[in-house]
Amino acid sequence: MIKVGILGATGYVGAELTRLLSQHSEVEVMFLDSRSYASMAYSKVYSNFKNIVEDQCTSVNLEEDLENIDVLFCALPHGLSQKAVKKIMEKGKKVVDLSADFRIKSVATYEKWYGVEHEAVEALEKAVYGLSEVYGHEIAEADLVANPGCYPTSVLLPLYPLLKEKIISPDAVIIDAKSGVSGAGRTPGDGNLFAQCNENLKAYGIGTHRHTPEIEQELSIAAGEEITVQFTPHLIPMTRGILSTIYAPNKKAVNQQEIKEVYKAYYHHQPFIRLLEDNEYPQTKGVYASNYCDIGLKIDPRTNNIIIVSAIDNLVKGAAGQAVQNMNLMFGLPQEKGLQQPPIWP
Amino acid sequence: MIKVGILGATGYVGAELTRLLSQHSEVEVMFLDSRSYASMAYSKVYSNFKNIVEDQCTSVNLEEDLENIDVLFCALPHGLSQKAVKKIMEKGKKVVDLSADFRIKSVATYEKWYGVEHEAVEALEKAVYGLSEVYGHEIAEADLVANPGCYPTSVLLPLYPLLKEKIISPDAVIIDAKSGVSGAGRTPGDGNLFAQCNENLKAYGIGTHRHTPEIEQELSIAAGEEITVQFTPHLIPMTRGILSTIYAPNKKAVNQQEIKEVYKAYYHHQPFIRLLEDNEYPQTKGVYASNYCDIGLKIDPRTNNIIIVSAIDNLVKGAAGQAVQNMNLMFGLPQEKGLQQPPIWP
Amino acid sequence: MIKVGILGATGYVGAELTRLLSQHSEVEVMFLDSRSYASMAYSKVYSNFKNIVEDQCTSVNLEEDLENIDVLFCALPHGLSQKAVKKIMEKGKKVVDLSADFRIKSVATYEKWYGVEHEAVEALEKAVYGLSEVYGHEIAEADLVANPGCYPTSVLLPLYPLLKEKIISPDAVIIDAKSGVSGAGRTPGDGNLFAQCNENLKAYGIGTHRHTPEIEQELSIAAGEEITVQFTPHLIPMTRGILSTIYAPNKKAVNQQEIKEVYKAYYHHQPFIRLLEDNEYPQTKGVYASNYCDIGLKIDPRTNNIIIVSAIDNLVKGAAGQAVQNMNLMFGLPQEKGLQQPPIWP
Amino acid sequence: MIKVGILGATGYVGAELTRLLSQHSEVEVMFLDSRSYASMAYSKVYSNFKNIVEDQCTSVNLEEDLENIDVLFCALPHGLSQKAVKKIMEKGKKVVDLSADFRIKSVATYEKWYGVEHEAVEALEKAVYGLSEVYGHEIAEADLVANPGCYPTSVLLPLYPLLKEKIISPDAVIIDAKSGVSGAGRTPGDGNLFAQCNENLKAYGIGTHRHTPEIEQELSIAAGEEITVQFTPHLIPMTRGILSTIYAPNKKAVNQQEIKEVYKAYYHHQPFIRLLEDNEYPQTKGVYASNYCDIGLKIDPRTNNIIIVSAIDNLVKGAAGQAVQNMNLMFGLPQEKGLQQPPIWP
Repeated sequence: MIKVGILGATGYVGAELTRLLSQHSEVEVMFLDSRSYASMAYSKVYSNFKNIVEDQCTSVNLEEDLENIDVLFCALPHGLSQKAVKKIMEKGKKVVDLSADFRIKSVATYEKWYGVEHEAVEALEKAVYGLSEVYGHEIAEADLVANPGCYPTSVLLPLYPLLKEKIISPDAVIIDAKSGVSGAGRTPGDGNLFAQCNENLKAYGIGTHRHTPEIEQELSIAAGEEITVQFTPHLIPMTRGILSTIYAPNKKAVNQQEIKEVYKAYYHHQPFIRLLEDNEYPQTKGVYASNYCDIGLKIDPRTNNIIIVSAIDNLVKGAAGQAVQNMNLMFGLPQEKGLQQPPIWP
Repeated sequence: MIKVGILGATGYVGAELTRLLSQHSEVEVMFLDSRSYASMAYSKVYSNFKNIVEDQCTSVNLEEDLENIDVLFCALPHGLSQKAVKKIMEKGKKVVDLSADFRIKSVATYEKWYGVEHEAVEALEKAVYGLSEVYGHEIAEADLVANPGCYPTSVLLPLYPLLKEKIISPDAVIIDAKSGVSGAGRTPGDGNLFAQCNENLKAYGIGTHRHTPEIEQELSIAAGEEITVQFTPHLIPMTRGILSTIYAPNKKAVNQQEIKEVYKAYYHHQPFIRLLEDNEYPQTKGVYASNYCDIGLKIDPRTNNIIIVSAIDNLVKGAAGQAVQNMNLMFGLPQEKGLQQPPIWP
Repeated sequence: MIKVGILGATGYVGAELTRLLSQHSEVEVMFLDSRSYASMAYSKVYSNFKNIVEDQCTSVNLEEDLENIDVLFCALPHGLSQKAVKKIMEKGKKVVDLSADFRIKSVATYEKWYGVEHEAVEALEKAVYGLSEVYGHEIAEADLVANPGCYPTSVLLPLYPLLKEKIISPDAVIIDAKSGVSGAGRTPGDGNLFAQCNENLKAYGIGTHRHTPEIEQELSIAAGEEITVQFTPHLIPMTRGILSTIYAPNKKAVNQQEIKEVYKAYYHHQPFIRLLEDNEYPQTKGVYASNYCDIGLKIDPRTNNIIIVSAIDNLVKGAAGQAVQNMNLMFGLPQEKGLQQPPIWP
Repeated sequence: MIKVGILGATGYVGAELTRLLSQHSEVEVMFLDSRSYASMAYSKVYSNFKNIVEDQCTSVNLEEDLENIDVLFCALPHGLSQKAVKKIMEKGKKVVDLSADFRIKSVATYEKWYGVEHEAVEALEKAVYGLSEVYGHEIAEADLVANPGCYPTSVLLPLYPLLKEKIISPDAVIIDAKSGVSGAGRTPGDGNLFAQCNENLKAYGIGTHRHTPEIEQELSIAAGEEITVQFTPHLIPMTRGILSTIYAPNKKAVNQQEIKEVYKAYYHHQPFIRLLEDNEYPQTKGVYASNYCDIGLKIDPRTNNIIIVSAIDNLVKGAAGQAVQNMNLMFGLPQEKGLQQPPIWP
């Protein structure tokens, strides 16, 4: 049994980790860390876990409480995560970090976009970017995995192979992304209130969203050159799900079949990537509460644009599910272990 | 392996059966019957099942296609179900019927409320009412299980023990029930349109809903006398979930602890009944996509009323989940087999 | 022109007052008071008002800034409202108070249920309970109108005439009420977050909700004797609307026509009360964004219960709309002035 | 008083026309035509209109029943509308047609995209495209106004001035549009069911949506050259609202101020166009149930793209509201007559 601890277990990502790990036959959860709810029964914070998760929340001391742990999931906010991960690494423990703190390889870029100093540069240098389907081998060897952001996951999985194979040219990529409100977390604010979000729809952070440099870093690696993308997130009145609609000019004059062949070459053995058929496009309900990423595409003969649509559950493939997948890879388990529940419909 | 067939596999209940059975280690699904979608890939009708359920829908011939089947789930509309079940029984196969056709023991009552003649009276006489936690022993011996309605399940599980133990008196029980829209099925109509249901709330079928005689039949059995209840269903702008708020005068002057003792006596070993603590009340999200029934209660000292609140997922414990639970009982498996996924939150 | 000020203009009730008053041909809004957003343009807080309401929010000094005001709408939280109203009354200004501070005539009852000392008892004694259709004459003469709570409005309008006329007996009234999330206000908290409320349904405050004594006070006045009711509120995943389902035994053996005659006698000239026909029941969408109260009813011959269903928009008839209606009454205007927009559907 | 008739009054657009016209002081509605609900009280079809609209639906005979009518609103489906408009024009009546039948000036283009023969070419030649803010003068003189589609309205209002002034170059315009479900109408189908749309999000009709040629026709007129756009609609789990996010390369190296100056030049006197400030972006709730079109924009210095976001209520500015605005123009009334209700928030 792999002994795991969860830091920040009472946020939505922490709760989703708890849900997935409770169904994982090779894992034992040793603690559910929470400052806000220390000593409260976890099932008081999330009543769905009544009779399923009997533990109390604990406020973990990273100096003392890690002895029996094999791996930590760190679901703390960025800035706080750095400090915790640094200590955990010093204790010689493996970490899957779900914050942004170890995703951006350039300290300067991180500090510019996140407005926080990076105090764990040594750990950062060891971090592997945890896009499971792309960096599986590196993740298997890693001590610290930086779990990708939700939007970047939905964008990188469809774009990485196409840039790598130079199917699409790296300029002029436009990403119009849409997310459910759970992506805003459980900390109350005007932006995630029911009456502000329901029967409403908006774009936000145009040109300034922090997931932009993360997307650009990985697409640049794929393309072998610097890429700048247009990334626009939108807030959708639903709880779960991200749909990204991606536009790129078809400068190489490929056809749909050629694109699909590339996807098949890259993802044929990947259990969580589902390539839809011609004229089928993903719906977020098709991946609800699951670790799948559905991808559909069209080359529009009128405009010669390639339009790619991807759908994920932001809390699963966009966060906790991919983190468990990465843990599986780190511990030599089949990557789908504990993640094979079908999506929920309706 | 238990070999099962699903009749009416493309309705929401059929889809939920497919989801649950695909995760059941002792079951092999032999066919997914659908007249409307015959020969279409099931994952074209429910795209969540892509790469998970590879079967095509088939229009099953009940005379010929049942040879290799151990048990059928019949998720056809009432009226149609009778005819199918009659044939299946003649072939010597076990059935879990999810329609209303075999729930009501009195043919006259059935025909009055459903406006349909009963043409399978012989089968009806063999049918066991499939409220798993109450009739577990009878279900284990049954060839035909009449799976309870969604509203009745939410009402009977909390009320049955209290009437049986004469904790509450059988007159003046008021049931104010609320359901998500998936309860109206996938057949399109004005009543289940998004723009008619969203940002809307209504009562319907006051005094005339067809689940009334089913509730009264079972509560009368529990009480040992004829019971008439006030049952009012409401349509709520959400996809899944039923919450029933039940009011009864506390004529016997019991206290909350005494009620809880009765529940514990009846349900102590029941994995899917969760009794909440004092001043906790169920939320439908707490049982989302799961087979749990959560129960909370309060005796109001100001009015001396007992108020009981129960929550289920209408498609799981209120339909497909309880059907699988009943199949487990019929085949000697642990009743929770294949049903242990935690509820989804948020 | 009536010159009005709004205290607490940036809560949802304040915003709805602003919307309604901006369409009122006899009213000039002199200030929009807000501590939190002082000096910010009102249309920055509520972007719907861009180019419509050009004012800035101001933090009003009640000692100095009331000179040019004829009437104040006080939409402050309970406890705070007392203090403000006391000062306003001392300045000789009329007030419509939308908090709970002047609804409960018994200081002891108020202090028990609200946990706050009442420091404006002199004003309280002058307050008229602002249920427009019932206390129209008193409201016309009042200097201080205590605008009813949202749930009480939905309950009292249908029940007042029936108790007054002794059509229903005053014991055993059960009120199962359901509200949209805007009733919880714009102050962020776990209870009004999108991801906690969407696809969820719950009962809350069973036997303890603060609207209970307000309902009981007014029903007792109607009945001429002390009434205790069972009142259970529920939170519904929609923004606006309250639906109350009310149960009472038909001890006097009236028929539906007799009940309707009573309603007609009381409400025949009331523009905002709409009595539905037999077998029609209200939907909240039918009153969306309007000041109507729709009422439908059924006597169930099986149980001999009277079931009454009422629907209002909690922010209009349940708050700001009724407040404007009361202002109209206080200033001798037709009560429907400025309130005649049809409900929005869909 | 202008005497109007509504053909197809029981669809959502017809209902919205009825709502707006009932508040219009210069209009008398003479009939509400509906085949499906002929002889039924209109307020039985839309219960919000109880006591407000007392008329019955009638199945109008266009040969006989138009004598007393000044103008017809035709809210029939495309294909049917042609036939009706042809007859109405022959009777010498004015028409605002809300279908697609008279929007596309090229018969060949219409027939290709809509798959229907055009049988009213003579009328088509007289039709004026009813984008009120752009073609106000032509509309004022027109007998037949082809009211724009919902998506095109949201796209053309922000893009028309910029193409006309050659601020943006006409190639490579990408329009990512999102609509609430009421856009799919009230005719029930799998695509507008609550349980299929709620907690779901999808793209549809990529490269093939019928609003594409309408958008291109008008943008080509503005640009003075043929334009092909990339238009991708999405279905959002909300009832009302369209948000369009539009991307174009900033080839002319303009700055935001220059773009705003163009908008001001074109729309300064237009009451329903609201230009947001820098770093403000529209939300559909900001225009809910109103005739406004909100526009926000950003030039992203990193990509040198211009990103424009527009929001409308699809049933008001996207259909019935703009139709009333056009009627006002046709009859010499102020265009905002009857349309000045503020948007509803929350």
